[in-house]
Amino acid sequence: MNKYWNQKTNEITPYVAGEQPKDVKRLIKLNTNENPYGPSPKAAAVLKEINPDVLRLYPDTNSTLVREAVASVYSKYGITAENVFVGNGSDEVLAVCWQTFFENCRNTTKSVLSPEISYSFYPVYSEMYDVNLESIPLDSNYMIKIEDYIGRENCGIAIANPNAPTSVSMTSLDNIKRILEANKDVVVIIDEAYIAFAKNPISAVELVKEYKNLVVVQTMSKAYGLAGMRVGYAVADETLIEGMRRIRDSFNSYPVDRLAEQVAAEAILDQDYYNKTRNAVIATREKFVSSLSKMGFSVLPSSANFVFAKPEFIEASVLYQKLREKGIIVRYFNKQNISDYLRITIGTDADMNEFIKAIEEIKDVQNG
Amino acid sequence: MNKYWNQKTNEITPYVAGEQPKDVKRLIKLNTNENPYGPSPKAAAVLKEINPDVLRLYPDTNSTLVREAVASVYSKYGITAENVFVGNGSDEVLAVCWQTFFENCRNTTKSVLSPEISYSFYPVYSEMYDVNLESIPLDSNYMIKIEDYIGRENCGIAIANPNAPTSVSMTSLDNIKRILEANKDVVVIIDEAYIAFAKNPISAVELVKEYKNLVVVQTMSKAYGLAGMRVGYAVADETLIEGMRRIRDSFNSYPVDRLAEQVAAEAILDQDYYNKTRNAVIATREKFVSSLSKMGFSVLPSSANFVFAKPEFIEASVLYQKLREKGIIVRYFNKQNISDYLRITIGTDADMNEFIKAIEEIKDVQNG
Repeated sequence: MNKYWNQKTNEITPYVAGEQPKDVKRLIKLNTNENPYGPSPKAAAVLKEINPDVLRLYPDTNSTLVREAVASVYSKYGITAENVFVGNGSDEVLAVCWQTFFENCRNTTKSVLSPEISYSFYPVYSEMYDVNLESIPLDSNYMIKIEDYIGRENCGIAIANPNAPTSVSMTSLDNIKRILEANKDVVVIIDEAYIAFAKNPISAVELVKEYKNLVVVQTMSKAYGLAGMRVGYAVADETLIEGMRRIRDSFNSYPVDRLAEQVAAEAILDQDYYNKTRNAVIATREKFVSSLSKMGFSVLPSSANFVFAKPEFIEASVLYQKLREKGIIVRYFNKQNISDYLRITIGTDADMNEFIKAIEEIKDVQNG
Repeated sequence: MNKYWNQKTNEITPYVAGEQPKDVKRLIKLNTNENPYGPSPKAAAVLKEINPDVLRLYPDTNSTLVREAVASVYSKYGITAENVFVGNGSDEVLAVCWQTFFENCRNTTKSVLSPEISYSFYPVYSEMYDVNLESIPLDSNYMIKIEDYIGRENCGIAIANPNAPTSVSMTSLDNIKRILEANKDVVVIIDEAYIAFAKNPISAVELVKEYKNLVVVQTMSKAYGLAGMRVGYAVADETLIEGMRRIRDSFNSYPVDRLAEQVAAEAILDQDYYNKTRNAVIATREKFVSSLSKMGFSVLPSSANFVFAKPEFIEASVLYQKLREKGIIVRYFNKQNISDYLRITIGTDADMNEFIKAIEEIKDVQNG
């Protein structure tokens, strides 16, 4: 608290990101859902090939290279560059969505609807931009209950699919269509940060041309192995994109730098590498889940590059600490309904074998 | 307008940045105050030396490398890394300042004070964050009138020094001290985007330890030749910095990417290159101003890497067009009190000679 801080600065509870330890070499870092594989070699080549002197010039405010790359991936659904908004990571893109579409909740009794267990930044955005948020419970299998989003008064909807930190995804696009149909007067955000890791990805991007109220948000940080580069994007109707640009140009006209733009565009265009690494992560996950189940964990069905697992032989918070002492960091959320779980990022096969070895050691000590 | 846009999305007038033409080769680009010299070779070397695989990991949310580099430059004033906040360009840093310190103006009769002619993003931030802004006229020489900021009710002050687009700077730190002394209950922002180009730079950073209400904002985009890399920073009392972090972590935890952090830190540490290029720009400016004066321009005394010049032989808007036809772009503001002027960025000596040649040709045609 400080007399110069605004009321909001004082009262807000900021988002707490997973720890970024200074010396990652000594640790197995399975806490922030980073990709164990680096970016596409074609993306990496940009760093060597670019003339550093171009860095003296401002970047393209609309990141056209990235927008065109995204459009080329989704051209089969009629998506063009005009349907794409690029920002400094999908967190910034989501913040812009809140400001562009949800601030009308202010001073009303209406709320944005979002699952009770979901990305913990949603309540922070809502507090930041004075938006009411109504948390809708999941079912007992941590699935989103579609019917709760039908016929309920609201001023917007935000759903992560696959959901975080549960890793669970909706079973079909029809479910998303039902929500869109029933809420045509408000914007529905489908946050697909982890969509690439579903066995059969069903991106809502293919619904964008049909539903003028849909915003699909994706990120380069997970499947493209570029968390360090800060690029995310939204795909939506042109008019929604135009609104987002208006808001962006009212706080920061150039959020994506020249290097990020080029690296991201090359990464998106290298779909072979994207599919290869995505499949590698999925394969590791399936083996890992099988091992975890045998070792006394209840694991939710994962469509993400992490698993949400409940140890049945020890308290999750205790296991979190014991793993940390062995140099393995995972994420633990001390929150209602999920405090029995650990969120474990899928690394390489070697990383996950280390994890399993550590669990074996912990159980050995436990069993005396 | 769109039914899904919020009222603010619909009503706001976004900032309009200087044009970024696609093919800069055919143009002499003197419209957005970019540095004609690229970044430090030591900064450029980062791109070749970095292991691209680290881009899979999130960056340091607090950009410690940059904060430590800034602290090392200003250690003589007692500045440490805890006094530094880093953001995605100084525009984002300013936006965070507005949200952290000025939103208390909301629903009050108090206003943030700012010069009538100044950086055109200030009114946009104010509209964006529902802050009242009171424009304080400059004197007839386009100087800031210090006495107007003394004893006037307000909820904050934002001043660019040197001012933009006028290029004029305050004459001494004593003027800034007078403003700080008289406004100890509010935050005073001194925006020093162009401070490096003053002949004898008098950065307000040396007042930070003395005044708990001072925020000095600087950028890598101008003197460091890194507009394309998007890094800016604020230097202020630790508690003000902590407030800014709280706001940042409520909309985007990782605004500065891994490459930007390392490139910026190396650039800041290479003060020899910084001084060499800064001095080259100043030398070119002084020659250019002398030529302009001889050719019938009234030029305001510049402490920036641009000049604000009034052609006496032709209307500024007409000259803007004629230059453009010759492949030279400058900035023209169709606004009260400055519509007689052009803002001309200082490029290389060769760039400015081309400019002068173009003026000679235009005058030749004019004189038949």
